[in-house]
Formats: sequence, C-alpha cells, structure tokens
Amino acid sequence: MSAHRYDVLGLGNAIVDVISRADDDFLIAQGLRKGGMTLIDEARAEQLFRAMGPATIISGGSAANTIIGLASLGGKGAFIGKVKADELGALFAHDIRAAKVGFSTPAATDGTASARCLIVVTPDGQRTMSTFLGACQDLTEADVDEALVSQSAVTYLEGYLWDPAAAKAAFIKASKIARAAGREVALSLSDSFCVDRYRDEFLGLIRAGAVQIIFANESELHSLYQTSDFDTALAQLKRENILGVVTRSEQGCVVVKGEEALTAPAFPVEEVVDTTGAGDLFAAGFLAGYTKGRDLGACARLGALAAAEIIQHIGARPQKDLRQLAEQNGLGVGLN
Amino acid sequence: MSAHRYDVLGLGNAIVDVISRADDDFLIAQGLRKGGMTLIDEARAEQLFRAMGPATIISGGSAANTIIGLASLGGKGAFIGKVKADELGALFAHDIRAAKVGFSTPAATDGTASARCLIVVTPDGQRTMSTFLGACQDLTEADVDEALVSQSAVTYLEGYLWDPAAAKAAFIKASKIARAAGREVALSLSDSFCVDRYRDEFLGLIRAGAVQIIFANESELHSLYQTSDFDTALAQLKRENILGVVTRSEQGCVVVKGEEALTAPAFPVEEVVDTTGAGDLFAAGFLAGYTKGRDLGACARLGALAAAEIIQHIGARPQKDLRQLAEQNGLGVGLN
Repeated sequence: MSAHRYDVLGLGNAIVDVISRADDDFLIAQGLRKGGMTLIDEARAEQLFRAMGPATIISGGSAANTIIGLASLGGKGAFIGKVKADELGALFAHDIRAAKVGFSTPAATDGTASARCLIVVTPDGQRTMSTFLGACQDLTEADVDEALVSQSAVTYLEGYLWDPAAAKAAFIKASKIARAAGREVALSLSDSFCVDRYRDEFLGLIRAGAVQIIFANESELHSLYQTSDFDTALAQLKRENILGVVTRSEQGCVVVKGEEALTAPAFPVEEVVDTTGAGDLFAAGFLAGYTKGRDLGACARLGALAAAEIIQHIGARPQKDLRQLAEQNGLGVGLN
Repeated sequence: MSAHRYDVLGLGNAIVDVISRADDDFLIAQGLRKGGMTLIDEARAEQLFRAMGPATIISGGSAANTIIGLASLGGKGAFIGKVKADELGALFAHDIRAAKVGFSTPAATDGTASARCLIVVTPDGQRTMSTFLGACQDLTEADVDEALVSQSAVTYLEGYLWDPAAAKAAFIKASKIARAAGREVALSLSDSFCVDRYRDEFLGLIRAGAVQIIFANESELHSLYQTSDFDTALAQLKRENILGVVTRSEQGCVVVKGEEALTAPAFPVEEVVDTTGAGDLFAAGFLAGYTKGRDLGACARLGALAAAEIIQHIGARPQKDLRQLAEQNGLGVGLN
C-alpha cells in the first residue's frame, strides 16, 4: 500500500450545533425523544429554537467531530461535507480549517440553509438532538474527490449520511475508491434509530466487504442485530469478521476482531456536563492510535481519553489539546 | 417614587461574542492589546476571525450580560440595544428573551451587520476583545422608550455607548428621563481605554448629577482620575459623593458612598477559565441585591458570587441558575 497523505478522511453531515440547557419537562413539552436524534424541517427548527433557552453555538457534525479530535491528537485529517455559503456555513468551514483539517468541499450557493442541530442538554448531561439537514441534502457523488479518498489510510463514514437522499451515493463512491486503493473503510452506526432506518443496508455493506471497521454504542449494536441482549449482539458482531468497536458509556468499551475480544475501561471524569460527541471523540482517539499502528488496547484507551474530555464541557469539539492530554496520561507515545 | 415595573433597564451595545483560545504569541502576532477592548472595522473583523482558532459563539454585550445576570438572580430586567435583522441579530434577540429579559428595540433592516466581539482567551483566562460595532452604530434617541425608562428602578448604562456616534444621545436621553421620574442611573466605566477616550464626559455626567452609581475596576478608576495610586483614586471617588463600586479582581471589591467605605472579598474559584463578563456579572449581582433593598455588603457579596460563576467557564452569560447558587451560599434571602 502506498504512503498516505491523510490518516483519516471523514465523510459526513456538515452541521453547526445550537446548544441549550433545559430540564426533562422541556423535552416532554416539545415531544423530544431523550438521548435521540430526530430529523426536523426548517419550520420546526425555527419553532424549537424559539422555545429553547439561551444558546451556545459550536460547530459539530458526527464525522467532523471525529476528524477534529483526530487532528487534536496529532493525526492528519480531512473532511468532506456540504454547507451553504451562509453565516453558519462560514462558521463550520472556519472552525474545521482552524483545526488544521483539510476541507475543500465547495459550499452550495443556493438551496436551503446550512444544517443545524438543536441540542437540548438536560441536568444529567444527556443530549437530545433535533437536526435540520439543510444543505447536507446537497452533498453528492461529485463532492467525493477520488485522489483525497485514495490518499487517506482510513475513510470514515457516518451512518447519518444515509439520511440525506444523495449522500448515500457519495458514501458508496468513497467506499469503492478506498477499497480499490487498498485503504480501509470505517462506519459509525451513528444512532440506534438511524440503524433502525437502514439496518439492512448497513449489514449489507459489512457483509459485502465494503466496511472493515465498525463503531457502535450498545444501543446501536442492539438495534443492528435486533436483540436486547448485549452478549448475543456481540457474538453476532464477532461473526462478521471485521474490527468492531463498541462503546458502553461508563462501562468502557469492547473491541472485537473475529473471535478475539478485549475490553477497556472508561476514563474517569469529574462531572458529565454534556455527552454530545462522546462516541465521535471515542472514534477519534481510537483511529488516532490505529493509524499510528498502536495496539488495539492503546487505541481503546485513547478513545476513552478523548471521549472523557468531550463530555466534561458543552459542545462536541475538544477544548483541550488532546495530544497533550494523552501525553499527560502516558498515552502519547507514537502520536506526533 | 411610584412602583416600578423593572428592577434594572440596561442600555448598551447589542453584541454577540465569538470566542476562541490562543496563546500570548497570537496576541503579539495580531498586534492585540492583552486584556483590552479595541474597536475594529468589518474588514479587520473578517481578517482576525480567519486567523482565530475554532470558535464558540455566545451572546454578549456588557450591559446585556449584566441584565441577564440580574434576571438569573430573580430580578426583573429589560434591555435596549440595536441589532440588525440578520443571523447574529436573531441569536442575540433570542438569547436575551429566552432569559426572560424584556427586549423590544426594533432590529435595523439595512445598514451594517449585527455587532460581534472577537474574543481571544489566553491560557491564564484573560480575555482580549476586538469589537466590530456594526448595527450598534444605529442606536438612536428614538430607540429609548420613555415609559420603559421611567418604569425602571435603575437605568444601567455602559460607558462603551460613547463609542457609537448616535448612542451617546440615547444614553443622555435615558439618563434625563430616569432622573425626571425620580429613578437612579448607574454607569459602568467599561474599559480603561474607553475612560481615556471619554474621561471629561464621564466626570461631567457624575458631577452634573446625571449618574448616581458608578461601577469600575481598578484600572478604569485609575484612568478616570489619571493616577496609578489606588488610594488616591479612591479618595477622589469618595469626593464625588455618589455610590461607587470598584472591583479589584481576586482582591475583591471596595464600595464607597461619600466618606463611607466597605470592602468585600472575591468569591473563591477553582479555576479561572475566561474572565469575559466578570465586571458585568459583578454589577448584575450587586444591582440584584441593591434593587431588593439589601445592604451594601450583601450587594457586594452577590456581585462577587455572580462574577465567580462567570469566570469559571467560556462566555459571559451564566451557565448556572444564579438564584440557586446564591441560595446555596446563604445569599438568597430577599431575592425572588
């Protein structure tokens, strides 16, 4: 395999998060499914925003968060995703470039506004997301730069890309290019309801060899295999014969590769402020180690470290230099 | 004096903060005066934003922050300030209304964009501000609602209002209405360089009886009286025969009323993350107590409490319910 230019290329929805705090009564009054991600249209986004409390605006997007986390750990990252040429789109593009991530997907000049995710954070730190996909709907195959994909060691795709109609084709194109170039493809299952919507297609991708690495949390794994028993789901995942990374919140994670399995603990945190991005940043840490050739245990610990940082503050973009944090915790060797 | 509808009406620049972290080298490279507030034009705002790191966007504005803090402490607040009808303007209006503050200044439909303050926070927690005033330039006397001013126990004016050309007239109109209605007028000196620009006018307001309460930090007080000696400056302030509230960062504050003076300690904090809004929130706490008839010592402790909350996180809007925080610290009596 030839030398690569990027460690990880992320392909995902380019979203800015609009975050506010509220108690559980607000979720009930607004009919929001706690802990979930619900797709909403622009009118509902405006209505919900009016009802929400004072907001903090921070760039987000699942795969984008992962690539930013990777870059903070010293990895070389690039991102493909669609914004519109408006204020939120400019913010997204600024923030990802400011984090030294390669980003050159052209912004849409017409069509709907840039995507936003309205996030309500409850006192327990849980986040409930309502996403207006907006310009993400305009991501097409044409936005997938063949050279970029073939020069990236891992192409990381978020399951949420199945939601915008044309993005699925971009996803599949990227996967094919990566495979043809001898690269690896990782898929994040994103959300249990997302898995519910696209279960057969996700399983199809795995079983067709289009994906070599899967990131999932417990409920996504349960949804994928339609079981409420973790061990049953894990046994199924092992049979796929891919690298599977399953996060279990405060119970840490399980990494499986064929019949092999290892567990790693969660990283201790003082206070869970906002869980937004926990899975994204776990993937960031894991892939930062993985693309540097670290063993799977070290990858898992890096994932736990990055996830721990993100849940201790508002927003899904790291506030600390994760590479420094890794070094302070004896995990820095081999990251540069 | 007749019953009032609002405890405090704030009049100030309606600004959204764009916050990012950087080290001191960035300030030097960008020619930024550490800890200060510099006025910039739109082109410079764009240039500086491009150079800045990933951003967090949170509504700000000095007097607006104060009124939000007052509302969080259970006070009834209103605000007058000018945004444009654009995305940042909509965010500002949403956030202040979501905090249950009365805000009905019409947004400008043409002219320059809504104001933004580009804030660089260094590792020591110090904030360095560069403000593009934008639509704040369009605040005029016509925006000062006579009924609103005369129904507010205290009208709180930020010294920064001297910067936009037409806002000064709005400031003076509000002060006159308040005095005619038998209300009190408070002035925040805002920034030592702002005092440098308008020293004679600020002293003129105080000495003409247009202002009954002054909020200042040490360097603003030094600038007002052109002395580097704190005791000399304080002696001058006492001679003005008004209520003077002087904050001294970790050294707490001094409150003077004529020849009387009292000091109060700063509230202990675990870590100073971002000092943006420290003075604004001190004024919020002080005025929340003052308008409830609390003694000056209690007012000072409430100020210290609110300032301590704001400097422990990014952004100048409270993340905790300040009334609860006051109750937890034995300062809640009389706030409702």
